[in-house]
Amino acid sequence: VNRVLVTGGTGFIGRHVLGPLVQRGFEVHAVGRRAGDAPDVRWHEADLLDGERRAALVTEVGASHLLHLAWHAEHGKFWTAPENVDWVGATSQLVREFAAGGGLRAVLAGSCAEYDWSAASPLSESASALRPATLYGVSKDATRRVVERLVDESAWGRIFFLYGPGEDERRLVSGVARRLVAGEPAAVSEGTQLRDFLHVSDVASAFVALLDSDVTGAVNIASGQGVAVRDVAATIARAAGREDLLNVGTLPMRPDDPRELVADVRRLESEVGWSPSLALDAGISETVAWWRRMSR
Amino acid sequence: VNRVLVTGGTGFIGRHVLGPLVQRGFEVHAVGRRAGDAPDVRWHEADLLDGERRAALVTEVGASHLLHLAWHAEHGKFWTAPENVDWVGATSQLVREFAAGGGLRAVLAGSCAEYDWSAASPLSESASALRPATLYGVSKDATRRVVERLVDESAWGRIFFLYGPGEDERRLVSGVARRLVAGEPAAVSEGTQLRDFLHVSDVASAFVALLDSDVTGAVNIASGQGVAVRDVAATIARAAGREDLLNVGTLPMRPDDPRELVADVRRLESEVGWSPSLALDAGISETVAWWRRMSR
Repeated sequence: VNRVLVTGGTGFIGRHVLGPLVQRGFEVHAVGRRAGDAPDVRWHEADLLDGERRAALVTEVGASHLLHLAWHAEHGKFWTAPENVDWVGATSQLVREFAAGGGLRAVLAGSCAEYDWSAASPLSESASALRPATLYGVSKDATRRVVERLVDESAWGRIFFLYGPGEDERRLVSGVARRLVAGEPAAVSEGTQLRDFLHVSDVASAFVALLDSDVTGAVNIASGQGVAVRDVAATIARAAGREDLLNVGTLPMRPDDPRELVADVRRLESEVGWSPSLALDAGISETVAWWRRMSR
Repeated sequence: VNRVLVTGGTGFIGRHVLGPLVQRGFEVHAVGRRAGDAPDVRWHEADLLDGERRAALVTEVGASHLLHLAWHAEHGKFWTAPENVDWVGATSQLVREFAAGGGLRAVLAGSCAEYDWSAASPLSESASALRPATLYGVSKDATRRVVERLVDESAWGRIFFLYGPGEDERRLVSGVARRLVAGEPAAVSEGTQLRDFLHVSDVASAFVALLDSDVTGAVNIASGQGVAVRDVAATIARAAGREDLLNVGTLPMRPDDPRELVADVRRLESEVGWSPSLALDAGISETVAWWRRMSR
């Protein structure tokens, strides 16, 4: 039986990978600073930044597969947070320890922030330039370079833009949905920039498919569709039935915001054999419904 | 006064930087697992892989400059040693702590192993592809990417091939010199491959000049001259007066050994304003003389 060690299992993406991993027949071990709650998952409480604890846990679990989603993710601050450096070291060491203990295949969470954001979309794993502009992007990029040498078989899922229930409410989709559901006005920018959004449960599902494949190297985890941020906001407003409360253009556009960040998803579709199950409309409706339940 | 924290101060290169730093007016603090011995240098005993100790030391010293030479360097094994991963983390954290404590300028030891060795020489910081083929090279390359984001002003000295007194006797120049001086035969390969050799005291002198400049980014630390390995061996034999004991061609060439690894040194010469003081003949003679003294 394949035994997988999942990090970040209580996180925004991580909580959606556990069920699908169990369904695919993995024996699932999840690690977090606090244990979570999911059927048929064995929880291990550990801080992955504690080197001794981490090494002991890796030995104890003896996993054949690793799905590493944990990272410093504090909203708004993670781009430049010094904690990124902690995760470069901890991630590299984790993979080294996993490989030394007989681990076979590792899949890790990367980011579209590794790409040069001035390059033309769609951003391709093989053809687009890497030029991270933030400490977060640099740290992910550097970590990938080390990890690729440490384990025989590894893949690196580059996450683009995601949304869904449970997202930090200061982020675009959550922020607009929460306010509109609460009957408050929501201000957004002109929002003409195109972004590649994927529902968090699809992001998780793609990671599970990638783990359960033999594809190696960087793989974009995205929809392949560019949607204008203003259209995302309008879709939320329609789902909430509060188009009257959406004020488009009242916030400024950031001058350095790239016009288009959309993924080339051919590797994900043809090599991994995965495509999204939720269209943007459906995913947004589900997210708005979740905020409605939360506000009761 | 500029206060510099030197790591690896008891190492092959490190022991040659301390005097020149003092001469340039730096207040020199050296850190090592064991204290060394050099005039006007304050020694701090610390293992840089011990995170708490390292952070405390950085705070205690409060240096304006950092010269980081320490790394895992076990002969023959360092190319693939898992300890490289320790140094990715420790180096990144060291620079982060240095910057957080008000540090202004950091210079770190990189390697020609960061380049694509199938690229044409001379290897240039701006024009040649990076494609490290070993965990050592990957780790140096990844560390550089992180470090560049962590401190306002940093430079990265890419060391090519070095030699000199005190080098591990299993390496080419030391090995041949020691055997010939001892009256034993020395076997080398056909040695037609061209390499860029620099005497260790010149390597150290270049690092000191780089630290004391305002040049940033990657800078090759090398002579710019390609010399056939067989000619290096012949120079050693002449200096030792034992050309009769040198057997060229009796060891096999490694099939994957690049034909030429020579640095473009224009940044070092024109921007840093530094050039080697020891020609290869003179440096080899000095090294052979050192082995003669050691063998008495």
